[in-house]
Amino acid sequence: MKQPPQVSISRLALYLRFLEDYLLEHGPNSTIKSTQLARFLNINPHQIRKDLSYFGKFGERGIGYRVEELKNKISQILGLDRNWRLCLCGMGNLGSALFAYRGFKQMRLSILAVFDSDHKKIGKVMKGVRIYSVESIPEVVRKLKIDIAVITAPSAAAQSIADKLARSGIKAILNFAPVKLNVPQRLKLRNVDLSTEFNYLTYFLSAQVQQ
Amino acid sequence: MKQPPQVSISRLALYLRFLEDYLLEHGPNSTIKSTQLARFLNINPHQIRKDLSYFGKFGERGIGYRVEELKNKISQILGLDRNWRLCLCGMGNLGSALFAYRGFKQMRLSILAVFDSDHKKIGKVMKGVRIYSVESIPEVVRKLKIDIAVITAPSAAAQSIADKLARSGIKAILNFAPVKLNVPQRLKLRNVDLSTEFNYLTYFLSAQVQQ
Repeated sequence: MKQPPQVSISRLALYLRFLEDYLLEHGPNSTIKSTQLARFLNINPHQIRKDLSYFGKFGERGIGYRVEELKNKISQILGLDRNWRLCLCGMGNLGSALFAYRGFKQMRLSILAVFDSDHKKIGKVMKGVRIYSVESIPEVVRKLKIDIAVITAPSAAAQSIADKLARSGIKAILNFAPVKLNVPQRLKLRNVDLSTEFNYLTYFLSAQVQQ
Repeated sequence: MKQPPQVSISRLALYLRFLEDYLLEHGPNSTIKSTQLARFLNINPHQIRKDLSYFGKFGERGIGYRVEELKNKISQILGLDRNWRLCLCGMGNLGSALFAYRGFKQMRLSILAVFDSDHKKIGKVMKGVRIYSVESIPEVVRKLKIDIAVITAPSAAAQSIADKLARSGIKAILNFAPVKLNVPQRLKLRNVDLSTEFNYLTYFLSAQVQQ
């Protein structure tokens, strides 16, 4: 299989969410043409066909896609047909916000452990989830078979946490700290930097003001 | 001025955060060479020089960059030398999480209004910020001179909110809803999709399992 580009995988998630809604509205036997899907999603139909082509053959000439089948297939491709085990590293503002975020449940993501370096927080249990010392990351991540670590620690602590996570053998990290982390190649790293997103907008607004 | 690519602007934000820390540690008269900066940030020094070249001439041969000067200049380029007025559209889980997020203050972003469609929430005041009906977006955004709107509403409501924001004359939107929004060209739109980030990781983990 040709390696699909990152942006195709992102769009699969978009298709999936649309198909779920469409299915609820139009019933289990509904079909949809790529041109219809394209119009709804404001994406070129050729692009949709190309994105899906990385993962197999979908749709039938004259009929289009069987919505339920396509939804299930995409769900499987994205690994959403099973549960994933998460840990949160850093229980500050952002960590607490994500801990409370109920969107994870819909994505079948369960937070099973939280790590922090603050001795006042370590040992506490929130909604059944224990806060451990960051020192115990390698041991706890292995023991609880964590799949994905979410780094919500301050920038200064992020690399040291990433090192501990690497030692734990974890395979995937979502990093919210605005730093470029060094991790072993086998580890999949994604970065979400809220401040950079805002900085991009303020740059744009500021450039407009100066014009 | 040649239009800098998006990724250069993102990296400016990264440089800024590093320079702020460096300044605290090394004092107001410190200088740094692009090779040093590159090593610390794990970025090619040529890349750093190129990123900065879009915005003027920085650094002196043999000396490097004057840290405080460079920090102030980047801060100004990114529009971080002034306050920005935000509104949150959607006070569900994610909206509440962002409302509580103290990182905004450090970025000089102030939330001045919240919008929701739930009549039980409308009219409430939290930490001095009023929750308005989404219907009043055009009027309130204009009156309060909001610079940036943050869409934290569910996908199904996001486009209708974006339309109201467009009518308000706002210039920038940060969208957390996992949908592709249609907005006028003059409006700067950035998307942050947490579920897509996770989906990308679960796709990767799932593909590994299947191998």
